[in-house]
Amino acid sequence: MAEPTADHATEALPAFRDAGGGVNPLFLAAIEILLEEGDAARLAMLAGELHEADVADLLAALTPDERVAYVRLMGEGFDFATLTEVDESIRLQILKALSPAVAARGVGALESDDAVYILEDLDEDEKQAILERLPISARVRLVRSLDYPEESAGRRMQTEFVAVPGFWTVGQTIDEIRDDENLPEDFYEIFVVDPIFHLIGTVPLDRLLRAGRNTRIADVMRENQYTVRATEDQEDVAQLFKRYNLISVAVVDDSDRLVGVLTIDDIVDVIEQEAEEDIRALAGVGDEEMSDSVFYAARSRFPWLFVNMFTAFLSASVIAIFDDTIAHMVALAVLMPIVASLGGNSGTQAMTVTVRALATREIGRRNALKVLGREMTVALINGAIMALIVGAVASLWFTNHEVGVVIAAALVANVLTAGFVGVVIPLGLNAAGIDPAVASGVLLTAITDMVGFSAFLGLSTWWFGLV
Amino acid sequence: MAEPTADHATEALPAFRDAGGGVNPLFLAAIEILLEEGDAARLAMLAGELHEADVADLLAALTPDERVAYVRLMGEGFDFATLTEVDESIRLQILKALSPAVAARGVGALESDDAVYILEDLDEDEKQAILERLPISARVRLVRSLDYPEESAGRRMQTEFVAVPGFWTVGQTIDEIRDDENLPEDFYEIFVVDPIFHLIGTVPLDRLLRAGRNTRIADVMRENQYTVRATEDQEDVAQLFKRYNLISVAVVDDSDRLVGVLTIDDIVDVIEQEAEEDIRALAGVGDEEMSDSVFYAARSRFPWLFVNMFTAFLSASVIAIFDDTIAHMVALAVLMPIVASLGGNSGTQAMTVTVRALATREIGRRNALKVLGREMTVALINGAIMALIVGAVASLWFTNHEVGVVIAAALVANVLTAGFVGVVIPLGLNAAGIDPAVASGVLLTAITDMVGFSAFLGLSTWWFGLV
Repeated sequence: MAEPTADHATEALPAFRDAGGGVNPLFLAAIEILLEEGDAARLAMLAGELHEADVADLLAALTPDERVAYVRLMGEGFDFATLTEVDESIRLQILKALSPAVAARGVGALESDDAVYILEDLDEDEKQAILERLPISARVRLVRSLDYPEESAGRRMQTEFVAVPGFWTVGQTIDEIRDDENLPEDFYEIFVVDPIFHLIGTVPLDRLLRAGRNTRIADVMRENQYTVRATEDQEDVAQLFKRYNLISVAVVDDSDRLVGVLTIDDIVDVIEQEAEEDIRALAGVGDEEMSDSVFYAARSRFPWLFVNMFTAFLSASVIAIFDDTIAHMVALAVLMPIVASLGGNSGTQAMTVTVRALATREIGRRNALKVLGREMTVALINGAIMALIVGAVASLWFTNHEVGVVIAAALVANVLTAGFVGVVIPLGLNAAGIDPAVASGVLLTAITDMVGFSAFLGLSTWWFGLV
Repeated sequence: MAEPTADHATEALPAFRDAGGGVNPLFLAAIEILLEEGDAARLAMLAGELHEADVADLLAALTPDERVAYVRLMGEGFDFATLTEVDESIRLQILKALSPAVAARGVGALESDDAVYILEDLDEDEKQAILERLPISARVRLVRSLDYPEESAGRRMQTEFVAVPGFWTVGQTIDEIRDDENLPEDFYEIFVVDPIFHLIGTVPLDRLLRAGRNTRIADVMRENQYTVRATEDQEDVAQLFKRYNLISVAVVDDSDRLVGVLTIDDIVDVIEQEAEEDIRALAGVGDEEMSDSVFYAARSRFPWLFVNMFTAFLSASVIAIFDDTIAHMVALAVLMPIVASLGGNSGTQAMTVTVRALATREIGRRNALKVLGREMTVALINGAIMALIVGAVASLWFTNHEVGVVIAAALVANVLTAGFVGVVIPLGLNAAGIDPAVASGVLLTAITDMVGFSAFLGLSTWWFGLV
């Protein structure tokens, strides 16, 4: 295929995405040529109409230098909301390359939740440099949001919303909305407040539209709305949205005064992030992103490998206790990983089910014992079946049915242990306030390895009267 | 604490949830007593105002018989939308216990998406028994949705929506909405269609409210809206919602005619379900739910354990090749699980990152090689560090520095292999149209075990000139 030229690029307008849903290499090449030539007009023609999420994917596909060149060349045409859609490392790289004045202009044009999202990960002095260039009203609002704890509702909320008194009519409210210049970009409900901004109800827009113009707002509002405190953790807020299928929810401060609104599109990111965190934690992968450097990735993964090294040596020292037994009967060394591996895998199954049940609040003090009983029964069933198969195969392999009996017994013992610790470890960690997904995996395989090796080798030593 | 009586229950009204967010045992006990006494009035008083999501949690906490008793006793007060919030096994159990007439009355009162969700998992004859008791118009609508493939947009969409011609004015539209009795329960945008129902634009409700009454709808509508085809897979639809932060999206048929609308609250469930499927698949756990029987759970987990048994014997036979080597030097049997385990864990890290990057479309043909290079570099860095530590400890432990050199070399080889297959297996499975999360884990540990054992034992055999 011929290398696309800039002319070709802007005239034939290659599609942004290829068949696989990724950034079209042709489009990417055209952008790179325009960046090199510094052709702002054609760049705007080619990329100006893209959705911010598409621009985010485009930035991720460019080199660091090209990203900055892109933002500079687009100038006022670059929507800083794009930066809420890219990986943190890309966001920081771009922001650090821009002057505080340019960054302040871009951030100042955003809604408060997007502005906070962009500012929160910056170093304190960079954050200040941008904040002090903003108009006082915007600055005060952003600083107040930034004062809330990380990953709280206050950090994620939007401080632009529509609030009216209950004695207004529907018609008055609609007229007010028509005239108001400072409305949020998108909104799905309006809030009803008393004179000191205590929330007394909400009116979804479809209800507002269905009501007659002369109806009082207080007569159409929902009074039993869900609200969240600004200090609440985003994960708890996400649970609320999921449980009650909410689209937006009012955020109140400690005096129950309305301070902001959270909408589902922010919460979707949180929901995905929390599931993602569980997946990564279970595999011992930290918060790395595709765009992070290899050194960052290697360092973030090392702690788990380090702990794993420690537990692997522990397991090895369990084996070392029985080295004379192994010297007398090498078949045991051949078979022992089977016991450890099957224990580890059935334990991982029980643990995963428990970790997810904790995450979705399906498990609590009320039914913990029932879940444990369930997992032990599953372990007993599958452990017994595996013991039969593994025992039979081992007997035939080494033409020694006693080996088969011993490995079957050790396997049942290890799988039962695995089922037990697979439930108890996550529950215990959770009760102790530790994220069960993070530490469960390491602890579990350490235990199933050690129990597996010692059960099989110990039982063999006793049974065969070795040593 | 005294056993709560029915009187106590309805007068003191225990809170529905306890401090941990689970169902309050006191509340549960009160409900159970009312069910036993068949006290419909008090049951309605205690549970009648609960949100359907709360009733769903309540049903999950009751015994199967109590669940049916609850639905019967609540009568018309039982909202069948509750059944969209419970596990599949609970939903089927309740529906099978109710007469088709009662089920038809309950399903008939629902919006189309909830009705389809409830009907789709029933056996064909049960489904027909309910459908034939519905009014013809509802039946036709539901059958059309049920004709779309499982997990498609057509199955999840709501067929109730507001559609108006573009020449209408904003005022005319609002008046029409005020008068229309058949509006969907909640809606966030109205659709603009031509006479044969081709979608030509959308108007979010906040835009409708902001516009003057005399403005033409065609002048306020968004023309570049995203749409999905009814046959599209729900996972792809979820990607669209996530990528572009959508709240609702129009669903069109093969002739581009508007047939329904998908809203974010349905998609949130899909997003969570897809992440959940990845977590479970990586751990070898199937689609079991907390409320499934132990036998179902055991059976759904067995296939992975069976494959794991097979691969464990494969690894064992690799060890068996070197049984003479082990007989000469038992230290090798002590150390060999370390090499296998660390390889398995670093491979799992690489694999998890790749599986998730595939799920979020961050990886494609364009950057596959780059990702592979990245993972190999991470493997080289962490493999080298681990090799140094493990080599040193092994040397000291067995006061034999040659053992240290051999294990270090084997470890680097295995961790590099792990990094390679951790990327290549999921990419290969994905290209072959197989869910990478399902099969990657088994394949990966099989390879890292075999490579780990053979590298360490083979290298030792050669180095020490054994056998």
